[in-house]
Amino acid sequence: MPRITHLEVRDIRFPTSRDKDGSDAMNPDPDYSSAYVVLHTDDGRAGHGSSFTIGRGNEVVCAAIRAHEHLVVGCRMEDFIADPGGFWHLLNNDSQLRWIGPDKGAVHLALAAIVNALWDLYGRIAGQPVWRLVSGFTPEQFVRCIDFRYLTDALTPEEALELLRRQEPSKAARVTELERVGYPAYTTSAGWLGYSDDKIRRLSREAVAEGWGHIKVKVGRDLQDDLRRLAIIREEIGWERRLMVDANQVWDVPQAIAWMKELARFKPWWIEEPTSPDDILGHAAIARALEPLGIGVATGEHGMNRILFKQLFQARAISFCQIDSCRLGGVNENLAVLLLAAKFGVPVCPHAGGVGLCEFVQHLGMIDFVCVSGSMDNRVCEFVDHLHEHFVDPCRVRNARYLVPERPGYSTEILPASLGAHEYPHGSAWVR
Amino acid sequence: MPRITHLEVRDIRFPTSRDKDGSDAMNPDPDYSSAYVVLHTDDGRAGHGSSFTIGRGNEVVCAAIRAHEHLVVGCRMEDFIADPGGFWHLLNNDSQLRWIGPDKGAVHLALAAIVNALWDLYGRIAGQPVWRLVSGFTPEQFVRCIDFRYLTDALTPEEALELLRRQEPSKAARVTELERVGYPAYTTSAGWLGYSDDKIRRLSREAVAEGWGHIKVKVGRDLQDDLRRLAIIREEIGWERRLMVDANQVWDVPQAIAWMKELARFKPWWIEEPTSPDDILGHAAIARALEPLGIGVATGEHGMNRILFKQLFQARAISFCQIDSCRLGGVNENLAVLLLAAKFGVPVCPHAGGVGLCEFVQHLGMIDFVCVSGSMDNRVCEFVDHLHEHFVDPCRVRNARYLVPERPGYSTEILPASLGAHEYPHGSAWVR
Repeated sequence: MPRITHLEVRDIRFPTSRDKDGSDAMNPDPDYSSAYVVLHTDDGRAGHGSSFTIGRGNEVVCAAIRAHEHLVVGCRMEDFIADPGGFWHLLNNDSQLRWIGPDKGAVHLALAAIVNALWDLYGRIAGQPVWRLVSGFTPEQFVRCIDFRYLTDALTPEEALELLRRQEPSKAARVTELERVGYPAYTTSAGWLGYSDDKIRRLSREAVAEGWGHIKVKVGRDLQDDLRRLAIIREEIGWERRLMVDANQVWDVPQAIAWMKELARFKPWWIEEPTSPDDILGHAAIARALEPLGIGVATGEHGMNRILFKQLFQARAISFCQIDSCRLGGVNENLAVLLLAAKFGVPVCPHAGGVGLCEFVQHLGMIDFVCVSGSMDNRVCEFVDHLHEHFVDPCRVRNARYLVPERPGYSTEILPASLGAHEYPHGSAWVR
Repeated sequence: MPRITHLEVRDIRFPTSRDKDGSDAMNPDPDYSSAYVVLHTDDGRAGHGSSFTIGRGNEVVCAAIRAHEHLVVGCRMEDFIADPGGFWHLLNNDSQLRWIGPDKGAVHLALAAIVNALWDLYGRIAGQPVWRLVSGFTPEQFVRCIDFRYLTDALTPEEALELLRRQEPSKAARVTELERVGYPAYTTSAGWLGYSDDKIRRLSREAVAEGWGHIKVKVGRDLQDDLRRLAIIREEIGWERRLMVDANQVWDVPQAIAWMKELARFKPWWIEEPTSPDDILGHAAIARALEPLGIGVATGEHGMNRILFKQLFQARAISFCQIDSCRLGGVNENLAVLLLAAKFGVPVCPHAGGVGLCEFVQHLGMIDFVCVSGSMDNRVCEFVDHLHEHFVDPCRVRNARYLVPERPGYSTEILPASLGAHEYPHGSAWVR
């Protein structure tokens, strides 16, 4: 079994703000970026991982990754594989580093990059894509991936085991189903806030032609704009397809309720990030106000850790749980949230987009289906058609479904040429 | 009015882990550190600010401070002084930087350092210590310091104004009282977890001799140790003085309740940080369980932002609110939390210790007394007797009370020789 000998960190940025791709009410000009880590081993292998940011601050996450070096270099992969939850706990609980979190912000984004690289390496060693690797775990192996600290008032290891054992007998059938039909997806490519009405109409029409049944658009900058844009979109997509709206945290709680009452006429399936991602009780208040209108509340892409998700479930604050492979501390903490969501009966609809998020979370949605929830009902994984060409193992979406990843690892590796061109600030994409 | 021309950042660390000062159940070996910033102006002035960390990761906060340079350099102090809340909002809402928070972690600690430096500069320009400067604000000026985003479901600007206007007529009398008697303090110097029983007994005896009426000790590593140590301390301090205990986040919710039922025989006034600082509903459950035992719940030193405190109040989760001058985004966000605490009737007992935290939060406790709560009842500001000798304007504690700071600014400036010696990794304190 290999030993980790070197932690390489690279500051990778794509100048996406030039075309307003990814623009929304809170983020008008993102430069999609990747705090990228490679774990090199003494047998010549490498595990790749990254955390997603939107430009400035990527160097801070890179510094936070480097700050973990003493916890990673020298470690044996057999220790990670034997006790992934214990290993995660050590990585997440350096007695000095945790002060600048704990479990949140730059240091937690850094943790995610490293943890995802460990899982990528694990998959390569096992010769399997991570979704399939975890699908093959026994319930005991699965539970061993979780750090239950701060969770036991909502979910104990014993309850988790019981939940997983219920799904165990039918797992093989669901793997076969996934291989046959893929995992359901929705598109966010049509409705960025920086796009013109004409572009939105054209993209909505294309989305229908491509077979999308779930379409998400950005709202929240100007109410009249939202009403006009949603009318265009409903004209194009009709009333059978599901329409989701996303405010990216711009509202206070009373404003969120008032604004959504205006948008209710367009029958949104969910309102995403109506207010601060930290406001559990605020989301609960919004959920109660919008329930009679048939609108669910979704959040999670800025859901900083498992403790926040635990409370969102306890408070009945969300109808859709949007895990993020990099905001949470990588695969392990995402598995914890899958279990919590299943216990509280909330469907998981992973957040994607950015750089590589689609590649990563597809694994997590599939693990949820095979091992945890056992269901695709009301479950859709976000898809945005950006930047996949930079990946060695890009996600493949056909007929609004993610096809199962086939290559060993966590689909995290970026092509060497792309890394070189987008290294900040000296790559060719940044030097004019 | 000066313009900011340069943002200087320094990585300052004190090797406190060598003596186990500051050791507790979560933090066995802290090296008290300061991510230190100096804002230089075109008229030769300087404002000093810093954020406190405990060693590794201080360089990450320094990187996060540098990431704010484009938001600060070139700014005029007259714009900050005219609209401190608006200025704070801009600093806290860089559209790309906020992704690695928002309002939390390294980027928020960095914000605090910069904001505190701005207030230090403001105090120097006004020729007043910050507590006195803010005490002289009209209610309208005070409210202009606050960014109400995400707060209006709990506190509107109008309610804040009303609350401040009620205290306005009696402010001058409270300033006089403060100058006469100082602000109440408690000591944490006796009970660090790394200390021997003998040292704890000696320090407890000394604390009594020095006149302390409130004494806090660390618990949570081992129940039998806690029982033995608390017995020693009660022997020394008697039952009239208030004893507080601090678990530094080590417990899950059920464990916190069970452990505190054991410690209840020593009549602790509060249990501090019984579990994850992010667990609002967990704190509320603990508070309900311990209320019949007469033990209050305290938290806040890791309270990441105003949105968390809002919910702690809404959920009736805490009986004592422990603001921190660096964990929250500097003076402005602390003023917001003072207002929320007053609205919900929760006493504010600021967190201190570390490097400079005593120097900074004494101002905030005094502002709370003069402008916001108008009361010293059940209010005590933490005091730890470490590292004050490195400050140009160290806090002065006599008879268990903070004396009012007299020098202009926010008491943030560290002596040049101390900065030089403790610069990491090349200062003389680090080069053996």
